[in-house]
Amino acid sequence: MGERVIVVGGVAAGMSAASKARRMNSELELVVYERSGYVSYGACGFPYAIKGEIPQVRDVVVRTPEQFAKQGIKVHVGHEVLAVDPATKSVLVRRPDGSEFRDQWDQLVLTTGGVSIRPPLPGLDLPGIFTLRTVEDALAIREWIETKKPQRGVIVGGGYIGLEMAEALAAYGIGIALIERLPQVLPNLDHEIAAHVQAELERQHVSVWLEHAVEGFAGDTNGVREVIAGGQHIPADIVILSVGIRPGVGLAREAGIALGPTGAIAVDDHQRTNVPGIWAAGDVAEALHRVTGRPAWIPLGTTANKQGRVAGENVGGGNATFKGIVGTAVVKAFDYEAASSGLSEARARAEGYTVEAVSATASSRAHYMPGHQPIHVKLVYEAETRRLLGGQMVGSEGVAKRIDVIAAALHNGWTVDELGELDLSYAPPFAPVWDPVLVAANLARR
Amino acid sequence: MGERVIVVGGVAAGMSAASKARRMNSELELVVYERSGYVSYGACGFPYAIKGEIPQVRDVVVRTPEQFAKQGIKVHVGHEVLAVDPATKSVLVRRPDGSEFRDQWDQLVLTTGGVSIRPPLPGLDLPGIFTLRTVEDALAIREWIETKKPQRGVIVGGGYIGLEMAEALAAYGIGIALIERLPQVLPNLDHEIAAHVQAELERQHVSVWLEHAVEGFAGDTNGVREVIAGGQHIPADIVILSVGIRPGVGLAREAGIALGPTGAIAVDDHQRTNVPGIWAAGDVAEALHRVTGRPAWIPLGTTANKQGRVAGENVGGGNATFKGIVGTAVVKAFDYEAASSGLSEARARAEGYTVEAVSATASSRAHYMPGHQPIHVKLVYEAETRRLLGGQMVGSEGVAKRIDVIAAALHNGWTVDELGELDLSYAPPFAPVWDPVLVAANLARR
Repeated sequence: MGERVIVVGGVAAGMSAASKARRMNSELELVVYERSGYVSYGACGFPYAIKGEIPQVRDVVVRTPEQFAKQGIKVHVGHEVLAVDPATKSVLVRRPDGSEFRDQWDQLVLTTGGVSIRPPLPGLDLPGIFTLRTVEDALAIREWIETKKPQRGVIVGGGYIGLEMAEALAAYGIGIALIERLPQVLPNLDHEIAAHVQAELERQHVSVWLEHAVEGFAGDTNGVREVIAGGQHIPADIVILSVGIRPGVGLAREAGIALGPTGAIAVDDHQRTNVPGIWAAGDVAEALHRVTGRPAWIPLGTTANKQGRVAGENVGGGNATFKGIVGTAVVKAFDYEAASSGLSEARARAEGYTVEAVSATASSRAHYMPGHQPIHVKLVYEAETRRLLGGQMVGSEGVAKRIDVIAAALHNGWTVDELGELDLSYAPPFAPVWDPVLVAANLARR
Repeated sequence: MGERVIVVGGVAAGMSAASKARRMNSELELVVYERSGYVSYGACGFPYAIKGEIPQVRDVVVRTPEQFAKQGIKVHVGHEVLAVDPATKSVLVRRPDGSEFRDQWDQLVLTTGGVSIRPPLPGLDLPGIFTLRTVEDALAIREWIETKKPQRGVIVGGGYIGLEMAEALAAYGIGIALIERLPQVLPNLDHEIAAHVQAELERQHVSVWLEHAVEGFAGDTNGVREVIAGGQHIPADIVILSVGIRPGVGLAREAGIALGPTGAIAVDDHQRTNVPGIWAAGDVAEALHRVTGRPAWIPLGTTANKQGRVAGENVGGGNATFKGIVGTAVVKAFDYEAASSGLSEARARAEGYTVEAVSATASSRAHYMPGHQPIHVKLVYEAETRRLLGGQMVGSEGVAKRIDVIAAALHNGWTVDELGELDLSYAPPFAPVWDPVLVAANLARR
């Protein structure tokens, strides 16, 4: 029998780690404990499953415990790990029936993910107020919509999930108000870029309340009735609380595993924690940000899958390294796409860089093609070295994958001038002869 | 008065050069001679103008001679340059009325473009047989369609223009046969990738005749009636001859300007020819291919615009350089997108590389999203160094701009492994969590 490997958390990073470890080493004994009732699901699909664009919430599940069992991976859902003890190399686990047991590991992979932030506000536990993180959350939201037929929805938080959920609820004809504490939606973007997204929300009849902090919720046992924010009482029969997540580091901290400056678990490029034999990956862990050269915590499904695979390869006896992130992300908000990679101008200044920035608006297709749409591109670069620090892009088509060329430039530390020299694809239905990315980069050249 | 600059050819490269030279130096005297009746047009838009997707052929014209005149650029359409004499720094020009004159230059920019190949076949001059290169060609094709209402069209040549014109004619309900001398369409792609495009053509009711050489055309003064190919008589009331172009180097060759190994004008990275004071750019010139490190002739609008701008900047007293191409191209063929960058496997082997290749089929969106489509990706890399040599991609969505990340990798000489480490964008409507490019790159890793 090979070593016994315990994986705590069975979503993106955890199941990637288990699967890769299995492919590397058929001798390993692989056990996964997952607190919720599901593993191996694409959490990013939940808004589309709630919207009904994906028929069933369960359609986002990639593989079931039974399918993993056939690969020799024992998956225990409904099993919460309560404690990790590095000294005895054991975990304390609570079964669905409430009973507890200890299990031993030779290697431990912590993929406990992120936890939805639930600010301690009056009325927070009223029925009809939801966060969205698990299959159970998504099922509950969809059931609430189908049974209660809410007319007025409030989204608290204008980040990715907030925008996606605004679109999802609006598809039911629910009138949406979006409340954001900050003076803009999508705080990862610079304000003037985010303003384009806000305009799209308003075109879609979403009422956007910026600089409003939620003070509480009112209602009764039938459900939430209103959201109180900035002294205003905003009617609501469904509330989505999407004010962010924090890394789920409770187990790790109690076990003495070192956290990094971001508050997530510190890992090296092999996904090792500071405790030998304990690995971490996914939303619970930091990642090297290649632009700043420092650890960052940007919880995304792509990073979780990659880190999980690296951890799994190393658990299985390999020597894989994770080369880091540049913070690439894209979100669909109704008919709009907003993408970014690297640092915003605001963030770059906060990080201490001396920054220059250029903005261009160019067409998604050749100017003479019907259906062409404006794409707004912003590039941020270091004044002296001209090294690209970040890029942002918004528009109603051609944005999501166009950001990737900026991600490539950031990954490799190119200057904005090098970005402008690329031989990018062109055909009238897909791009103008000068791609919007090149238009922006060439503005920086002057 | 500043120096007198003559630009020969007023399409993409020529007008880019003239405009950039003007912005650099307001003292220059700038004169453009263009043989056809139009300048500054997006020739790549012609198929869409013929199709009717763009209302009028003239809509692809970016700026008119009158508009250039306001910038102080004198544009003479219908003026053909007959000879270039470096010894006297003069050109011989024929006016629209047939009279000729000499004009003097201090600097000369040759942007004479490409010339449609017209193989010397019997019946080639029958009415209804067209090549597509100029505004006049596009107008003539559209007029033929509107007045003659052809029922059966034959496309000769399965390259980019052939496929675009198949789509354009099919939009009128014209039944299309496509005849290609080679055993595949899109010879820049490897055969198994091109086969996906061929399947799409056949789904669209295009009859594809591979390995058939056209032997001639039959008809009468009313027009072409049939195309003879491989002994078959194929009925046709319109024929598009799209068997390629050659560089329009006649003037340059007669003037003693050096051509390169490809037969196009040899230029350095400043767009200088071997004759001081004479520059060349666009489809008439070579470009450094960054993958092979050697000059290549890949005539495309993007390269023409970039080279023209570099030439113009240098003509205007600047010191610009063109960093070269990687051969990125994309074509829309009905509902399909086919893109490539760098070398195909066949081409790489022909160039003498020891090659490995991987192919993957992955989804354009998250697997659970409705409407997701397969994308077929092929990556070609050097066996020993693992340096990426090329990438190809086909599918019905998400291909055109996805190729750009491969173009970036090729531009910089990355290995296939480095390509696989990129932090690419992800959201369920736009990509799976492992982007198709990463899926393919990771296959190469094993």
